[in-house]
Amino acid sequence: MPSLAAPAVPAAHHVVIVGGGFGGLQVALGLRRAAVRVTLIDRRNFNLFQPLLYQVATGGLSPSNIATPLRSILKRQRNTEVMLGEVDGIDPAARTVHLQDGETLAYDTLVVATGSRHHYFGHPEWEVHAPGLKTIEDATRMRRLIYSALERAEREHDAQRRAALMTFVVVGGGPTAVELAGALAEIVRHTVRGEFRRIDPAAVRIIVIEAQPRILAGGFAPDLSEKAAAALLGLGVEVITGARVTEVYADAVVMVSKDGAQRVPCAGVLWGAGVAASPLGRILAAGTGATVDRGGRIPVGADCALSGNSGIFVIGDLAAQPGADGEPLPGVASVAMQQGDHVARAIRDRRAGRAVRPFRYRDYGMLATIGKRLAVAQFGRLHLSGTIAWLAWVFIHLLKLVRFENRVLVLVQWAWYWLSWNRSARLITSGDGEPAPRPAAPPVRPEASGAAPAPAPGG
Amino acid sequence: MPSLAAPAVPAAHHVVIVGGGFGGLQVALGLRRAAVRVTLIDRRNFNLFQPLLYQVATGGLSPSNIATPLRSILKRQRNTEVMLGEVDGIDPAARTVHLQDGETLAYDTLVVATGSRHHYFGHPEWEVHAPGLKTIEDATRMRRLIYSALERAEREHDAQRRAALMTFVVVGGGPTAVELAGALAEIVRHTVRGEFRRIDPAAVRIIVIEAQPRILAGGFAPDLSEKAAAALLGLGVEVITGARVTEVYADAVVMVSKDGAQRVPCAGVLWGAGVAASPLGRILAAGTGATVDRGGRIPVGADCALSGNSGIFVIGDLAAQPGADGEPLPGVASVAMQQGDHVARAIRDRRAGRAVRPFRYRDYGMLATIGKRLAVAQFGRLHLSGTIAWLAWVFIHLLKLVRFENRVLVLVQWAWYWLSWNRSARLITSGDGEPAPRPAAPPVRPEASGAAPAPAPGG
Repeated sequence: MPSLAAPAVPAAHHVVIVGGGFGGLQVALGLRRAAVRVTLIDRRNFNLFQPLLYQVATGGLSPSNIATPLRSILKRQRNTEVMLGEVDGIDPAARTVHLQDGETLAYDTLVVATGSRHHYFGHPEWEVHAPGLKTIEDATRMRRLIYSALERAEREHDAQRRAALMTFVVVGGGPTAVELAGALAEIVRHTVRGEFRRIDPAAVRIIVIEAQPRILAGGFAPDLSEKAAAALLGLGVEVITGARVTEVYADAVVMVSKDGAQRVPCAGVLWGAGVAASPLGRILAAGTGATVDRGGRIPVGADCALSGNSGIFVIGDLAAQPGADGEPLPGVASVAMQQGDHVARAIRDRRAGRAVRPFRYRDYGMLATIGKRLAVAQFGRLHLSGTIAWLAWVFIHLLKLVRFENRVLVLVQWAWYWLSWNRSARLITSGDGEPAPRPAAPPVRPEASGAAPAPAPGG
Repeated sequence: MPSLAAPAVPAAHHVVIVGGGFGGLQVALGLRRAAVRVTLIDRRNFNLFQPLLYQVATGGLSPSNIATPLRSILKRQRNTEVMLGEVDGIDPAARTVHLQDGETLAYDTLVVATGSRHHYFGHPEWEVHAPGLKTIEDATRMRRLIYSALERAEREHDAQRRAALMTFVVVGGGPTAVELAGALAEIVRHTVRGEFRRIDPAAVRIIVIEAQPRILAGGFAPDLSEKAAAALLGLGVEVITGARVTEVYADAVVMVSKDGAQRVPCAGVLWGAGVAASPLGRILAAGTGATVDRGGRIPVGADCALSGNSGIFVIGDLAAQPGADGEPLPGVASVAMQQGDHVARAIRDRRAGRAVRPFRYRDYGMLATIGKRLAVAQFGRLHLSGTIAWLAWVFIHLLKLVRFENRVLVLVQWAWYWLSWNRSARLITSGDGEPAPRPAAPPVRPEASGAAPAPAPGG
């Protein structure tokens, strides 16, 4: 049995990073040669490449293709320790963090990078009917919703209920919602083509409901919003803008637009709208006297540090940091990663007695993909769409996938999908310990006991 | 909206297959050109390559690498329909099957191929502590148990509890148990090497407990059992034969051997012993007057049909069919597949008015892998071990993976593992809707609030 007691070493400056997402991991990696001791705490044992989560939700990739164990990434970084745990308290006066399991950990510098969760505009009860897309479990739940609905539609005898089971509502008009709607359209038109005998999946309705007057309103220029909307329409997706969802049920949503309220029966709702900062933000604010903004984010200065408390940095989706235009920087991976780089450099500079430069965000552009050879990209004044934007998207996402093997596996699966339209990971699986999932609505087939209808030749 | 009503076609002979595993799928594929109508019913929407499930349980492969959607496999087979549902009743007099959701389906020929579940020798309450390995959910549960135990050990301060968290018990000595123990040994010695700072995973104890006097007693010759045991010992696995597990708890097992009863504290139990036929066997027996054997299996004749009821075939793990030596054929994939081929041919022959030949099982041999370049293989009188048996194992398993893409993905992951020892799919995930998993035992670290010990340089 190895001894737990570490050998006596001079007490090094201890950097505690809470959250192993894009931002937190970047801080840890940036400190690999610094004379500090680093502890990275996360609730999960892996770093998740969230921008591709919608491909897990639609059965194109497996969870492990976009998740890399944190220990594996950091194993050669001898000054860094990974800890699986959940922080539920921060004491800035004592310079300690408290973990849910009772442990208390002292820090010299704290980096809080716990990101955001989807939220439901004050309706947390909607979550049971409308899975969002932030975790692996969210994605497999969404995958189950999509493929179970098609299975149930295949066995449904009532035309009205069948029509509802063949209707999906995507709430939101940001990149996640657009990517989900596009992937869904390709699934029903191509992937499952010819696989059903009683329904025609190509008749599935996909409805995108966005409150803004255009989709991709946050960050993309109007011409690209139009291109994306046209691409979605070309795939058969109905895009409804300027409409708010006011009620969400297991089998319907109610939306209010300028035409009034309308009830849309559906198989389920894919939630691509609304994110709120992680609850740790409010805990941190309570301890430091900071005021969170409407989205639960912590305001930070140009040094990414908590004002008046230089020992605490906040980065990523949890931070509200004004950009060059005075608006808060968007909650995207590249902001979190650049902030992470900055904080690691700031810690190194401080330790070395060098002046710390203020953080400047470099906007390298934005991308959203709709489908095969359909994407929009905005690199400063350069606006791209179609095949070239899609190629840029593929290239950049492959490059950014953390580990070599993941890239190869993702490339093979994308190449296969390109050739065959097939999605290999469309399993309807349930949670551990739950029984295997079953069709939820008991269909009634009165004619079946005598002679079930033969499969339609045209399928 | 497409109409559900199928066009009027002459009522074809309707073959209903219950179960889309190795046997049931083979029957469906064998009827692709037959003048019959086929309905394949399964609770899951995919065919699972169970022999590689232990690689999912140990984080080497993703669930979707070894699962292929049934609809995808059968999409071009126009006489065949896939139905997601669970059969809970069979009425041989009326020639109908009843589904859990209330539907009744008429058949002309019925094939029951619902396989087996692991079972706990009359102790179903053990299942909560000792996951078996029959479904995707079982495998992800086992994966969570393994990797969570290491995480908890890393944070445990009590030496005794830490030692327990670094002990795994594998119950059983068949191929599944041997493969699990071998994979586990490679994980702790190679995969996670250098990833922990406080524990040395190489010190993990892996204990295989088998009631028989030797491992691989079912089907393998004694010399190969010895070779396998030696290979496991070489990997640091403790193999205890002639010992029975009599109690199973969350943190310990009690085993009884010739030396008496012994309590073994452990992180968890991986259940590789005991299978029982699917519950549908008893339902079928009750309806037909057949008597199930001790394992819940239905006795069938040389035609794979239920005696006295030629309209019902039973194949695979659910069937008790005597082999050439009079002993029931083993519950392995190749028996199920050959029986499936046979039943498809029998149905075709009967429809064509040809005589139906009796089923003869051709034993092509048995394989079990222990680790990298460690395997045993028995092809008739030819007994192989080491690299050549391992190469045979790799080749045969790749060949048998249903779809092209799966093979490529599995090959890439195996090649990467071969080069790096890395396992890409070692995610600790929870069920959908459950909160993210957390370390279960709250560790107490009294010294941590002041100054946590620095990571050990040697790790």
